[in-house]
Order: sequence, then C-alpha cells, then structure tokens
Amino acid sequence: MLLETIQSPQDLKALSIDDLHKVADEARQALLEKLSHHGGHNGPNLGMVEMTVALHYVFNSPIDKFIFDVSHQSYIHKMLTGRVQAFIDPAHYDDVSGYTNPKESEHDLFTVGHTSTSLALASGVAKARDLKGEIYNVLAIIGDGSLSGGQAYEGLNQIATTGSNTLVIVNDNDQSIATNPKGGIYTALRNLRESKGQAADNFFKALGYDYHYLDEGNDLNSLIELFQEVKNANHPVLLHIHTIKGKGFKPAEANREAFHAGGPFNLETGQYLSSGNSGATYNSVTADLIMDKMKKDSTVIAINAGTPMLLFNQEQRQKAGNQFVDVGIAEQEAATMTTGLAKNGAKPVWAVFSTFMQRTYDQLSHDMALNNQAGTVLVYGASVSSMNDESHLGFFDIPFLSHIPNLVYLAPTNKEEHLAMLDWAIEQKDHPVAIRVPVGPLRETGLDDETDYSILNKNQVTQKGSQVALFGLGNFYALAEKVAKELADKHGITATVVNPKFITGLDTELLDSLAENHKVVVTLEDGILEGGYGQTVASYLGNSNLKVQNYGIAKEFHDRYNADELLAENGITITNIVNRILEELS
Amino acid sequence: MLLETIQSPQDLKALSIDDLHKVADEARQALLEKLSHHGGHNGPNLGMVEMTVALHYVFNSPIDKFIFDVSHQSYIHKMLTGRVQAFIDPAHYDDVSGYTNPKESEHDLFTVGHTSTSLALASGVAKARDLKGEIYNVLAIIGDGSLSGGQAYEGLNQIATTGSNTLVIVNDNDQSIATNPKGGIYTALRNLRESKGQAADNFFKALGYDYHYLDEGNDLNSLIELFQEVKNANHPVLLHIHTIKGKGFKPAEANREAFHAGGPFNLETGQYLSSGNSGATYNSVTADLIMDKMKKDSTVIAINAGTPMLLFNQEQRQKAGNQFVDVGIAEQEAATMTTGLAKNGAKPVWAVFSTFMQRTYDQLSHDMALNNQAGTVLVYGASVSSMNDESHLGFFDIPFLSHIPNLVYLAPTNKEEHLAMLDWAIEQKDHPVAIRVPVGPLRETGLDDETDYSILNKNQVTQKGSQVALFGLGNFYALAEKVAKELADKHGITATVVNPKFITGLDTELLDSLAENHKVVVTLEDGILEGGYGQTVASYLGNSNLKVQNYGIAKEFHDRYNADELLAENGITITNIVNRILEELS
Repeated sequence: MLLETIQSPQDLKALSIDDLHKVADEARQALLEKLSHHGGHNGPNLGMVEMTVALHYVFNSPIDKFIFDVSHQSYIHKMLTGRVQAFIDPAHYDDVSGYTNPKESEHDLFTVGHTSTSLALASGVAKARDLKGEIYNVLAIIGDGSLSGGQAYEGLNQIATTGSNTLVIVNDNDQSIATNPKGGIYTALRNLRESKGQAADNFFKALGYDYHYLDEGNDLNSLIELFQEVKNANHPVLLHIHTIKGKGFKPAEANREAFHAGGPFNLETGQYLSSGNSGATYNSVTADLIMDKMKKDSTVIAINAGTPMLLFNQEQRQKAGNQFVDVGIAEQEAATMTTGLAKNGAKPVWAVFSTFMQRTYDQLSHDMALNNQAGTVLVYGASVSSMNDESHLGFFDIPFLSHIPNLVYLAPTNKEEHLAMLDWAIEQKDHPVAIRVPVGPLRETGLDDETDYSILNKNQVTQKGSQVALFGLGNFYALAEKVAKELADKHGITATVVNPKFITGLDTELLDSLAENHKVVVTLEDGILEGGYGQTVASYLGNSNLKVQNYGIAKEFHDRYNADELLAENGITITNIVNRILEELS
Repeated sequence: MLLETIQSPQDLKALSIDDLHKVADEARQALLEKLSHHGGHNGPNLGMVEMTVALHYVFNSPIDKFIFDVSHQSYIHKMLTGRVQAFIDPAHYDDVSGYTNPKESEHDLFTVGHTSTSLALASGVAKARDLKGEIYNVLAIIGDGSLSGGQAYEGLNQIATTGSNTLVIVNDNDQSIATNPKGGIYTALRNLRESKGQAADNFFKALGYDYHYLDEGNDLNSLIELFQEVKNANHPVLLHIHTIKGKGFKPAEANREAFHAGGPFNLETGQYLSSGNSGATYNSVTADLIMDKMKKDSTVIAINAGTPMLLFNQEQRQKAGNQFVDVGIAEQEAATMTTGLAKNGAKPVWAVFSTFMQRTYDQLSHDMALNNQAGTVLVYGASVSSMNDESHLGFFDIPFLSHIPNLVYLAPTNKEEHLAMLDWAIEQKDHPVAIRVPVGPLRETGLDDETDYSILNKNQVTQKGSQVALFGLGNFYALAEKVAKELADKHGITATVVNPKFITGLDTELLDSLAENHKVVVTLEDGILEGGYGQTVASYLGNSNLKVQNYGIAKEFHDRYNADELLAENGITITNIVNRILEELS
C-alpha cells in the first residue's frame, strides 16, 4: 500500500501524478473500511479525498497553515500527516480524535468542533504572519453549511479588509448536515454552481475576493492545477470548489443526511449496523408532543439551527411543513428569531445542543430574556453523559444559562415531568423557558404530572426525612434517590430527598425550613460545579448553621473521557457521597 | 409648532407634503435643541429625520411593524408616536429612554441596544404573521455599521429563505460609530453607493433580494415615493438608502465619530461642553502602556470591534498603524481573530465593553480557552457604576466569563496592579487572560506592583486580623477597606482584608487557614450575586465552620438606575455589611 509509506506531506510531494491518484484511491478505501467499522463523519471526508491530497501536494504544511472549519473533514489530512496508522490499523483507530488536534500533530493548528470559526482564525494567523514580516500561505477550508454562520461572514469581511495572502476554500457539496435552507447565501451558491461560477451578482466578488470556481472538485488534476495557480497570491483568494458529499460510496452519495455522520455500517449494503434505539426516548416523546401540538395549533413552530435530526426525522419535518424552520448553522438567528416569533404571537420551540447554545448568550440575554418573550428552548446533551469530545462538551450550560434574568430553566427528572414542563412552557406567555432535556434512558412514573409550573421555584420534596437533605437536580435526581436508599438501608438514616425542578431560582421557604432538623444539605448536578446550581444553594445557606456539600465536575475541558470515571474522579459516587455525609453527621 | 400636534402617526398621515417638510424641519430643530442640552446619539438621529417622517407617513405602525436595529436612531420615531413632549419640554427629557422600549409605546416592538439583531427579530415577527395568516409590512431599519455583525447576515439569509414580505432598510451613512473598515461588506456598499446601486456583483441581489437604491436619503419626497413603491410587497425587499450622518448640523457632518454620541454641546460652535476627564484614567493609562509596548514590539496588536475610542483616540490609532485592527461591530471575529493571532506568535490585546463581550461566549470558550491561547481581553464597564440602560448592563461578566476553563480573569484594584497585570498578560504564553478594567477614578499606590501573576489564584492579604475576613474583589476592594475601618474604629475588630486579584480560582490555602481564628467570611463583588465569585467561596467553605456572607446585586435587568440606590437596595452599604457581621459575631 502506497498510502502507508506517506509519513509526512514531504513524502507526497515526491510522488508522480499517477501515484497521487493511487494514494487518493487507497485513502478513500481506508476511510470506508475504518468508517464502516468505527463510525465517524462519513460524507464530509469522502468528499474531501482528492482535495486534501492536492492541498498537501501543492502547499507546504506546516509552514503553510491549513485551518479546517469544524475539522470533521480532516481525516484524510490526518492520514497524510503522519497518522495513517490510525486509519489502517484497527488497533489504532482511537489514536486520533475526530477533529484537528495540535496535541497530535504540528499540521493541526487548532482544536475545533464548532462551525464557522475557520475564517476568523485564519484572519488572525495571517495578520500575525504579516506583523512578523513572514511569507507563506494561510488557508481556510470551509463547507457551504458552515458558511451560513454569521461568524464566517465576519471572517470573510476581515480577511478582505486585511488584504494580504489568505486562501478561502469553500467546499460546496450543496449540503449542510441536513439539506441546506433555500434562500440567501444558498441562493448565491446555487446560482454560482449552476453557472459554473459565471453568475451575475457574485457574492464573493462583491466582498472584494479574487474568485475562482471549480466544478470538478473531486478531480485531482484540476485541483492541483487550481492550487498551483493561486499559491502565493499576495491578496485574498476565494476558491469555490464543488464536491460530492459521500463521493465514492453510493449509499452515502444517495442519502447524504444519514451519511453525514454515523456509527458502523455494512460496506456492501450501506445499512447502519445499529438502527438506533427503537423504543421511546426523551427525544422521541419530545418530538411527539410537539408534532401533536402543531396539528392542533398552527402557531406552534419548531426552530432549529442546522441539526434538525435532533428534533425531527425527515418524515416529521415533512409533516411539520411551514411549522418547522431550519435556519442553517446560525444559532444566533435561531435564538433571536424565536424572540420575534413569540413577540408576534406564535409559540416557538427552539431545539439546540447545549454545546452549540454557547453561541447565543447575548441572543438569549439581550433579545429573549430582556424582552421577556415566551420562547421555549429545548437544551439537548446537557450532561456529563453526552458527547465527550472536548470541543463538544454540553455541561457548561448551568453557569451559562441560569444566571440570565427573567429566564426560567427547568430540569425534569422523568418523562411525565418533562412533558408537563414542555406543555406548560409552550402555552404560557410570561417567561422565556429553557428545558434541560434529560439524558439517558427514559424514566417513567406512569402518573401524569399535574404540577403548576407557573409557581416558580417550587421544589418537590419526594421524601421527608431529617439530618440530611439531598437535592438531586434533573439527571442526577436518580443519584439522590440511590444515595438516600444507601443511607436508609445501611445506616438507618432517612434523608429528605428533593427534586428541585427549577435551576434558575431557589425554594427559599424549603431551604429555610431545613434548619430545624437537618445538618447537611447535599446538591448533585450533572455539570460543572463552578457557577452551578449547588453554589447558589451554598451561598443562600452560607450564613446558616447547615453544612452544604456541592457535587459537580471540575471546570476543565475534559476530552474523550469515560463518564463514570470522570464522575468518580470528582467524588460523584454513591459511596463517596454517603461517606462524606456520615463524616459530617458523626 | 406643527410637530407638537402629532400625537400618533395617524396625525402625520393627514398632513400635506409641505407640512411634512415642516414637521421634519421642526423635528430636526427639536432634536438639536434637546441633544445640545441633554446629550445622546447625535449623528444617527440627525441622519434619520426625513426617513422616519416618510416611514410613518407611508406605513401604518403599529399594524405594520417597525424594528430599529440598535434603536439609538429612534428619537424621531419617538417624537412621531406620542412622545414629542420628551423632546420639546426639558422637564420631560428623561421621560423616554434612548432606545426603543415597549413599555413606552405600542410602536416600539423590542427593547434593543446591541447591534445586528433587527433582521433576526424581523424574521421571527414576519414568520409569526405568516403562520397566523395575517397581512402587513414588517420593516427592519439597520445601519451600515450594524451590517458588519454576523447576526445581521444570518438574518438576511433567513428573511430571504422565508420569502414573504419583509422590508430591510439599510441606512447607509458610510460610517459606523467610528470610520468603517475598508473591505468586505464595506467594499460592497461603497461600490453600490458610487454606482448609484448599479455595480456589478450586488451583494444583496446575490442573496436573492429585490434591491432598490436611493442616493438622496435625506430627501423626503424621494423617500415617500420609494416607500410607496415597495409597500405591501409579497417578497423580501432591500432598500439601500444613502443618508448623511449628522445631517443638518455642520459640526456633526464634519466630525462624524465625535458626533455619533456625546454629552451636551454648544449649538453655535459644536463644541462639547465637557471635554471629558483631562487627568489620567484607567482607560488612558491602559492605552499608554499598550502604545508603549507597540513601539518596542511589532507583534503587539490591539483589536477592537466597532468601539475603538474605548482604547485609542483617533491620533493614537493613527500612530498604532497596522498594530491596531477594528473588525467592525463583529465581536465574534474579534475574539477568534485574537486566538489566531496568539497562536501564530503575536501578542493580541482585545478591548471590549463587558455588555458586548456577551456576544462571544463560544468564541472565548471553544476558540480561545479550549485552544489555551494567550490572548489578552480588556473588559471595560464591568461594574454596577457603568452604563445603566437595561440593554447595556456590564455586570453579568463574572458568571459569564469566570467559569470557562483555562481562562484567567483578573480583578485589579488600583493603577499599579492593573498595569502589572496587563504587562504580565501580554507577555506570558500560558493562558488566555481577561482583565476587569477598574471603573471609577484612578486609585494609585505610588508603588510598583511586583507580584508574579504566573502564580495563579494567589490572593493578597492586605491586613491580617481575626474573626472576620473581608474579600473585596476589584472595584469593591475599596469597600472592603471601608468596612474594615468601620469595624476597627467603631467596634474594635481588626478584620482580615483580602484582595483576591483572581476571579477564576480560589486561594484554597488562604481559605483553609481562616478556619483557625475567623468566624465569618464576607465577599464583596461589583456585579450580580448569582453565579459570581462569592458563591464559589461559599461553596468551597460550605462544609466548614465558617459562615459566609456574599454580597452582589440581584439577578435582574435593572434599568436607568442610580448606582448607589441599587447597591443599597441589595444591602451593599458599609452600615448594613457591618451590622450583619456583628449579628453573626455576637
């Protein structure tokens, strides 16, 4: 195999064009083999095979700086920069992350997992080069999906303003994670594709770019020719390159959304080996409730920013029709549009991954909360037990979201509670309401939740006890129950158990009442400790005689961790929690 | 005066065109009179006189929905919608806020003070209208400066995608707060202005808009004609209207940056009555240090997003040359560009108002902190005693910023400390460092600060005492000193006084040592209590025998408040703090 002889881009440069084709073919084959066994970002990488080979053949990394947007399309880049073993040897599949990572290679400049940042990064890298009086190429490789993020536009403006060498490569496969929206920048890109770059009103030329279009973006020779032409330009250049998402694997080319990313699949049939959870999940019951409401009320509308499958599958989106909006990978638009919808009498529900919600603090604060508009925000993946790449962590949401005024953030602990909260959130008109969608298997009580959630900050005491009060927030309510059971079974202590339900405010009446016959208050939350829910409890009780023990994980970008191990490292085990309580009580 | 007879837009519609001109002239005169006595956003409103009269003449607010971006240009709109008294009667000048405000009028849809949100709001308002099957015009009025924000671009895309009636009015006066950057969208706008809308590669047409250009944007008749032409369109329309910033007041037309906004001025000469603080301030010593470093080191670079005067005046910017970058009102770009600069060996300092930093949580977290790049962030106006419009509050920064991993957030208490921290931040290579630039008069010790800030989280004990320990963070260190003095003078108690310096971590050694001879720990911070610094102390000490009393203000969008009153309402007075300590000690 020629591919395995490539230990650095220098090795690639020594090859003949014929051999480069061979490397590309072998790389695609290796990619399919690994992806079919291991899973990963399928479509984006299959489409980038030839482009990546051409880039490393023509440019000179790491002197020339490559910046991959999102960086989920950097697998071939990893193969060609000393990490091929992680793609051809199953024992080493997990040696590399799914994103660029400076800890792995000097060819990876940044750890990146969110979209639309590459141009801003490139603008800084290029400006530093200019300040130092150095000369080399700075390249940003960005997909058409990522171009929908406002930060990408800000980066386009700044690169054009700086005016020195920067190559922006738009990898246009006419698909985001899901199908692209139809207007705006997608109109611009489509017109350019259809006219082979000749359309009037060229968006990129309008911004001042030296624009080049390549229709055959999976043709290695054309790519090499184009890159050689623009290499070492003394001004910003934009290459609009049309590629095929999933190129070279029929099922991926045919079903581009399903094959954007996913787990192991059958290489013959293109069927995913696991069809996912076939039973009801928090996600499925959420979707069902919203679909049901939509049918009865045409003002109910679901909003999403580029990850629609989070809420609805393709069939559900079809059914929802104009009551579903995917704004592109443009979270700021989603949050503020939600505000506008609520203001004008609609009932908007915005579904977002916690990690991507981070892009909208000001939209949640200055737009939704300051204007106190009753949008509903469904926060997914806000848990230690969700995505665990350091660039995709979802457990910073409580410090981020819960200290914004006016906003109500709810932490359901089971299906019935979640649905009751969601129903209330959609129908009420008083507050922006966010719901921390539970993570993990569906817990059902079988009893409808009749709570009136308009009575804010009212906690539920599920077991009355003494000496110790356990506050189990959302996902960690079950943990509080287990700790209580252990205390009862092994130590004869009946703890008070509390389901706080509200993250954004304290039940001060309950907290005040605990002083009478409790000594210790324990808070458990599925997220970081600092700035979290427990600390508001500790502060409130700081001047009381109650001791407070807060549990959460340490403030750190934990990477590809095992959730149970991480929790244990942070003292979040039944044994440790019980022991610390006993220490205090003794 | 005709103007004072206008109690609603209906009154305007009854007038002849000649009388409309009279209203416009009177409105400009009233505006100048009020601004010269009261201050406010001068340039933006002077330029909007004719457009606002024409808008209310042709359209039918509040059925047609007007959404003003930033809304600092809405003064004439307020005059014409029942609030004229606040502009012609000095006794009522403060009846209205400087921004649109739904509490004042049904003609104001949103409370807005940050840029680039109008299009997203409009996209939601229009979509809700469509869902309800209603028919009217939705208008967003956005300046060219605001167009540089990525969120504006996201809104343009979504409006184009929705495809129904929305009028986007780009009020192009070729100036942001300061001079616009030169490339990207500004190239596009300039080419369109210079060609009277005829330039090839029309940015807005590329995005699918029905585009109209008006060069005489301060000509009332032309404006009326244009608005009548596009009213009730069944698709998105973009009106590119060229106006004169400061129109009708020569000093404002001539010096557009100085007359963007400001305090009272002399109507004859155009001189501001107060020339500002002539002595040294935290801002001036900050600028001096950075300018000095720039001279010695060409890799030191200052970055700003649309508010350059925060850091440098026009002369200083000139001197800084290519070591100063204004990215436009594009805070995301500023934060991530800072990351790219640091990665490639430059020493970037990004100066930002706390309230606008809110637009960059993910850029600070996912870009700068995850990649642990040593950018310096200067956070201005992070205090209860800074801007006090509810849309411009700067005191949410600690919960927002201090729980991001890897980042070091420093709270200097005097000039020497601030400069030592800034010097360290710029020169070190280990962490992103943010500095909470002190607010208020310069405090000087006269002694150089020799602290080694690379020893993270080391607090400074400025007075050793017993019973009570006072942690005075940043701006509130002086308050801690005053409380200590009162305790000593009146109650014979020598308190321990601590200058924490570090917001992002605790000096656990110091905290542990307090148990020995202290009973109460008091934290004082100039910001909101929830999610703040004090709560991390309360949590850490939750299981100890120490009582903790945290001081900060309540989580709320406080509006146009008196800072001393607000602090008193939140118990932040020397008397109250002393009394609560004594209660606990007795």
